[in-house]
Amino acid sequence: MKKIKIFNDPIYGFITIQSAIVFKIIEHPYFQRLRRISQMGLSYLVYPGANHTRFHHALGGVYLMQKVIDTLRMKNVKISKSEEEALYIAILLHDIGHGPFSHTLEHSIVKNIQHEEISLHFMEFLNKEFKEKLSLAIQIFKGEYSREFMHQLISSQLDIDRLDYLKRDSFYSGVAEGNINSERLIAMLNVKNENLVIDSKGIYSVEKFIIARRLMYWQVYLHKTSLIAEAILVKILKRAKELTKLGDKLLASEALQYFLKSNIDKNDFDNNRLHLFSKLDDNDIISALKAWCNHKDFVLSSLCKSIINRKLPKVEMQNQKFSKNYFDKIEKTVAQNLSINKEQLQYFVFKGEIKNIAYSSVNERINILYKNGDIADITEASDNLNIQALSKSVIKYFICYPKGLLN
Amino acid sequence: MKKIKIFNDPIYGFITIQSAIVFKIIEHPYFQRLRRISQMGLSYLVYPGANHTRFHHALGGVYLMQKVIDTLRMKNVKISKSEEEALYIAILLHDIGHGPFSHTLEHSIVKNIQHEEISLHFMEFLNKEFKEKLSLAIQIFKGEYSREFMHQLISSQLDIDRLDYLKRDSFYSGVAEGNINSERLIAMLNVKNENLVIDSKGIYSVEKFIIARRLMYWQVYLHKTSLIAEAILVKILKRAKELTKLGDKLLASEALQYFLKSNIDKNDFDNNRLHLFSKLDDNDIISALKAWCNHKDFVLSSLCKSIINRKLPKVEMQNQKFSKNYFDKIEKTVAQNLSINKEQLQYFVFKGEIKNIAYSSVNERINILYKNGDIADITEASDNLNIQALSKSVIKYFICYPKGLLN
Amino acid sequence: MKKIKIFNDPIYGFITIQSAIVFKIIEHPYFQRLRRISQMGLSYLVYPGANHTRFHHALGGVYLMQKVIDTLRMKNVKISKSEEEALYIAILLHDIGHGPFSHTLEHSIVKNIQHEEISLHFMEFLNKEFKEKLSLAIQIFKGEYSREFMHQLISSQLDIDRLDYLKRDSFYSGVAEGNINSERLIAMLNVKNENLVIDSKGIYSVEKFIIARRLMYWQVYLHKTSLIAEAILVKILKRAKELTKLGDKLLASEALQYFLKSNIDKNDFDNNRLHLFSKLDDNDIISALKAWCNHKDFVLSSLCKSIINRKLPKVEMQNQKFSKNYFDKIEKTVAQNLSINKEQLQYFVFKGEIKNIAYSSVNERINILYKNGDIADITEASDNLNIQALSKSVIKYFICYPKGLLN
Amino acid sequence: MKKIKIFNDPIYGFITIQSAIVFKIIEHPYFQRLRRISQMGLSYLVYPGANHTRFHHALGGVYLMQKVIDTLRMKNVKISKSEEEALYIAILLHDIGHGPFSHTLEHSIVKNIQHEEISLHFMEFLNKEFKEKLSLAIQIFKGEYSREFMHQLISSQLDIDRLDYLKRDSFYSGVAEGNINSERLIAMLNVKNENLVIDSKGIYSVEKFIIARRLMYWQVYLHKTSLIAEAILVKILKRAKELTKLGDKLLASEALQYFLKSNIDKNDFDNNRLHLFSKLDDNDIISALKAWCNHKDFVLSSLCKSIINRKLPKVEMQNQKFSKNYFDKIEKTVAQNLSINKEQLQYFVFKGEIKNIAYSSVNERINILYKNGDIADITEASDNLNIQALSKSVIKYFICYPKGLLN
Repeated sequence: MKKIKIFNDPIYGFITIQSAIVFKIIEHPYFQRLRRISQMGLSYLVYPGANHTRFHHALGGVYLMQKVIDTLRMKNVKISKSEEEALYIAILLHDIGHGPFSHTLEHSIVKNIQHEEISLHFMEFLNKEFKEKLSLAIQIFKGEYSREFMHQLISSQLDIDRLDYLKRDSFYSGVAEGNINSERLIAMLNVKNENLVIDSKGIYSVEKFIIARRLMYWQVYLHKTSLIAEAILVKILKRAKELTKLGDKLLASEALQYFLKSNIDKNDFDNNRLHLFSKLDDNDIISALKAWCNHKDFVLSSLCKSIINRKLPKVEMQNQKFSKNYFDKIEKTVAQNLSINKEQLQYFVFKGEIKNIAYSSVNERINILYKNGDIADITEASDNLNIQALSKSVIKYFICYPKGLLN
Repeated sequence: MKKIKIFNDPIYGFITIQSAIVFKIIEHPYFQRLRRISQMGLSYLVYPGANHTRFHHALGGVYLMQKVIDTLRMKNVKISKSEEEALYIAILLHDIGHGPFSHTLEHSIVKNIQHEEISLHFMEFLNKEFKEKLSLAIQIFKGEYSREFMHQLISSQLDIDRLDYLKRDSFYSGVAEGNINSERLIAMLNVKNENLVIDSKGIYSVEKFIIARRLMYWQVYLHKTSLIAEAILVKILKRAKELTKLGDKLLASEALQYFLKSNIDKNDFDNNRLHLFSKLDDNDIISALKAWCNHKDFVLSSLCKSIINRKLPKVEMQNQKFSKNYFDKIEKTVAQNLSINKEQLQYFVFKGEIKNIAYSSVNERINILYKNGDIADITEASDNLNIQALSKSVIKYFICYPKGLLN
Repeated sequence: MKKIKIFNDPIYGFITIQSAIVFKIIEHPYFQRLRRISQMGLSYLVYPGANHTRFHHALGGVYLMQKVIDTLRMKNVKISKSEEEALYIAILLHDIGHGPFSHTLEHSIVKNIQHEEISLHFMEFLNKEFKEKLSLAIQIFKGEYSREFMHQLISSQLDIDRLDYLKRDSFYSGVAEGNINSERLIAMLNVKNENLVIDSKGIYSVEKFIIARRLMYWQVYLHKTSLIAEAILVKILKRAKELTKLGDKLLASEALQYFLKSNIDKNDFDNNRLHLFSKLDDNDIISALKAWCNHKDFVLSSLCKSIINRKLPKVEMQNQKFSKNYFDKIEKTVAQNLSINKEQLQYFVFKGEIKNIAYSSVNERINILYKNGDIADITEASDNLNIQALSKSVIKYFICYPKGLLN
Repeated sequence: MKKIKIFNDPIYGFITIQSAIVFKIIEHPYFQRLRRISQMGLSYLVYPGANHTRFHHALGGVYLMQKVIDTLRMKNVKISKSEEEALYIAILLHDIGHGPFSHTLEHSIVKNIQHEEISLHFMEFLNKEFKEKLSLAIQIFKGEYSREFMHQLISSQLDIDRLDYLKRDSFYSGVAEGNINSERLIAMLNVKNENLVIDSKGIYSVEKFIIARRLMYWQVYLHKTSLIAEAILVKILKRAKELTKLGDKLLASEALQYFLKSNIDKNDFDNNRLHLFSKLDDNDIISALKAWCNHKDFVLSSLCKSIINRKLPKVEMQNQKFSKNYFDKIEKTVAQNLSINKEQLQYFVFKGEIKNIAYSSVNERINILYKNGDIADITEASDNLNIQALSKSVIKYFICYPKGLLN
């Protein structure tokens, strides 16, 4: 008799896992670790409800994939049993390569490796452990399987990843405007010439999806407070690595200590490093920050305290670049007030820019399928909304410095 | 001790009425009649959940107005007790002038009178009955009160009417993408120089509101099936009036018979007519349609049956005008098949256009208030989305003819 | 290619109909008529959101039945394609025999016929029209099919009917405490020896379901205001029939007039009467009430006005019978004040009782299936809650008389 | 101008803080620490959505308290500005004394101190820092303020704490049946003779609340998997303390090391210990467990791995005590298989009991207020449901041992 595993989900109700291999992967320590990696990093400092994990997101992906497969089969797209299972595995593992605080620390812990590459490492490792049962999933993940729509379901402008994370992040953060109707969008999915398309009556839903995604970016993901918290977290890791290089043995978990003192990049990332990497999660980082609050290095302890006690610096954000004059003036004031040198100053006063494109037709298009069989990109298909306006990248500039030091 | 009246609302939970006069107006037969007028007319033929009434919408307006007043007072906008009550009354009665099937039959039952004018009639009548206690509400409703934001709350691009009906219609129709975050939008409301403005951090919410509204228009209010059902309903009334004029005494309620044979316009609309008008609701129309299904006039009975049994004609809709040739061809085929003459033909084959502007900065603007006190229209304020694109009116053309007669 | 029909539902999102015959039944005028019969009768006078229809409830039943079939198949219960379709048809049509205002007028329009019997009439009529394709559904509906759980899904203490209407009525009335988790309950369904059972870990959900149902009864279905409105509606029909018998030709739709003057019972209910019955819906009743508000018979017009204008009489409700003295005193006062005779008095002063059993193990049990294969009734299975306490019938007594006549 | 702080909440929408002192307390590091203490401990191992924090729960309490105050004032209960603020502070801080993993480790980190006592320590410390502004809140919290209902709002069978946590835990765990209608319950609150009562029409809501609470206990809080995870966590701390006493310096944060080696009880809990205690949160525990997975002590490392990798032991649960024979047999088998001694065995094979009373009228009653002013305990007031049945304590027995070692 089939064993069925049910997970409760505040969003979808129940997530039912019927595949034995999928369930075994979920039970693997490498996957269980995702229970300890939050989906939205430090956003909980702004949105106190945003404590959901990559574990739950990955399960949500499987749920939506089940809906996709039901829908496509109803529309007479043939999907075999083994393709179905491979799709579940691929979406389950698409983000397994994320380290603690996900995107934020993507380039702080290891160097020049995208999380997708680490995901692939994990998948290949598990493929051996599970006797090559992940091979088709890996093919799909890498975009090497003949049926392109399957890869597009894992990674494209309208993939299952986005359909779940936008809904989930909106739900948990309480930013209800970001809510998308994943179910409706999925009901509109179709396949034409082995490529993913949207039935034409789904145009408004796609538009709404693009707008909601853009809203989530500017209001949540790029919210200036979490933006700055994340910038500081990156600076903390940078400082910790510097101090480590100078011989300081910082309090930290064994795995974190390893990555602080080593400079692992793409070529060094073997199974040993993979295993060490798998020991890292958000707890390692937060525990380290808490310990470092008492470190004698003024830079390190100050930055850590600003995160732990949520005493974040001032951020200004605008559509134009900040003038050099203005920046210099701030630097000078801060340097004097804190009595710090040029090298330390970069940790307290810094600037940056953030960029977002709501819809990019350059990389991958969202294709609309008309009843007569024609296909058009959403920017052409939508006769009402100037989606092209959304295809321009928007840049904002920010500047960050300690609170209270400047008027 | 104050008497408090509580209404359950699936959307807001509870709607609490604390004002005695507001509650008395709700109990008045003129207002109770709104229980029998559906908010979305014939849309329930497409969205089976859309059976909510104008009664509930009006109560919802009062609820949101309470939130607005709380918010504005928190932002130190002074609103007196009597202004507060007047705002509740004004929003409660803003739509009381709607007849059966609301907008659809707005010009079929009486002539050249907007429902707002009839609302005003009702309000003035009730003002006498309630000893001038509605005077300030009437001033606000007419836009004659000195504090302009109060009228703007009743009628503008971002008024309480819209905030409730978009949310309510989206909720009951099950078109979740049309859901707007009324609570959030209200939290962003402010008053500057006695005019309604939106705090600048509410820009994304306003954009989402405009997009959601546009989506609701194209996907729900202008859905081609309800569009055509409504067009047929108008034609039924037209035909019924013609037959009445020819001496046919159609089965209908007393009040409906009166309006079928009279041609009441603005100048004739006295208190007697008001009272007769108040006797009409959706039941009069549907009961008449049911009775007329058996009428000997082929046109009348056919049209009525198409609504009652939901056997609706074919609709084609496109962005360009239909060619005269195409239309002529259809007319010819239908005339032959149904053996009907030119005069009858207009009831079975017809065309039309629908137009919608998502945001119109011509009439009234949505003004954004910046922290430095500056004000800008949303089209200028939004640096990301080309809301100007949404300011263009979009026109679609449709053509309608009996099913199965053409290809 | 299969034609798929999608209905929006605020509760379940989308209801997808894939079966051609199911869709054709939905399109039939006999079924479309359910769009005009509200699920909760006059409850909207208390809960203004409760305007949903039997049409939507029936579709909701099909949706839940789809979930049931998915669940049972996952648990290795074999259900053939034709059984599946029969289950959809049976649940779709289980309530088609309801007339206007459903239960309220069940014995006012026709005599001694349960709505289930009329449903069966409709099903048998449609079975001929659809070439015997409903035969298996009818067998299941009548409880004559060998696999008993199928009938239990249509009619038992935990049937699909209840799972949808409790959820739907709770949702639309806004009485959130009545909300049941249909999805969870369905996930717990199982079949043992061809009988419907609940997996033991579903005990708490069943308990909650019983409690929620009881709450809905006392708080909503038996709410004293809707109770009295319904009692008055019954009295109106009674009075109308009496007046008709006396030769008064009341204003009413043709079909309603027929049933007012005829006394149709089980034996007379042929296809002609079925067809006439199918012409009735809530509009006939409400339109008649509106017309009768001006009838010269004081009793009839008074009662009609009390519904239409929602000026309902006073109700007292208690756990003990009212004393004869008290009732006599009221009768006397009212008779004097309204100057009415004994015969008229019964329309204005009356008493009654209402009874409800939250869980009745006498008729049909809810059986719990343990992991070891044992089965027990829920009252025995639940070691925590005294569900037996819920098996006692609760009786309340009410008395009703005009407002304001008795302080 | 007043500064208003808004928090997003997936449950209530927005939580608005208007009081300056309340906001300052929220910003204090002692309170910020609650962001790192999960509300439901290890329940996320069963319910992956249950990652919400004590921080959010405390804010939710303030939100509900605002609703309570609105309701009571509407019912003419006088509440002064300073009482209002004190109520916010009291509910905000009622749980600040919780350490990591809340209840689970309540007696593992410090000895013989209830978390309420530690909350009081924190409040008194903060009272000094904030210049005695918390004095009234402390009086209310301790039950020493003359108006008893204020303390009852903080701590009683129907307090704000429960109203928020039941709703919140149900929401995040996705166990929808546990959902309570806090808003409705609050609407029913009243005050009689300075004591909290429920208006009689709220009886069904209270019953539903009691049932929902009971369901949450058996289905969520006492779910056997989280129960056992928590039991193991307690054993881990016990083992760690033993090893520490034997001179082993376990890897752990400074604060955790302190509490492992000290035996702090009520008399030792001074401000220094308070401050050290304030350094502890869930990260300290999880990081320690991760480090100890590699510890040489077989017991410690085994237990830690079972939590971190979610390889939990087998649990049997039943309504009767387990026989000594059965327990001995298990012990013997496990001892042989794992080759461990008696002392180690207690960490792998153990039993226990759990007890829950749905409603206890012994400690504190839920009083119902009738319209005539009478008051009755809910068990007497409810004529329908045998709530007395819910007043009996229910005991279940469990036994726990390594998986796979016993058939």
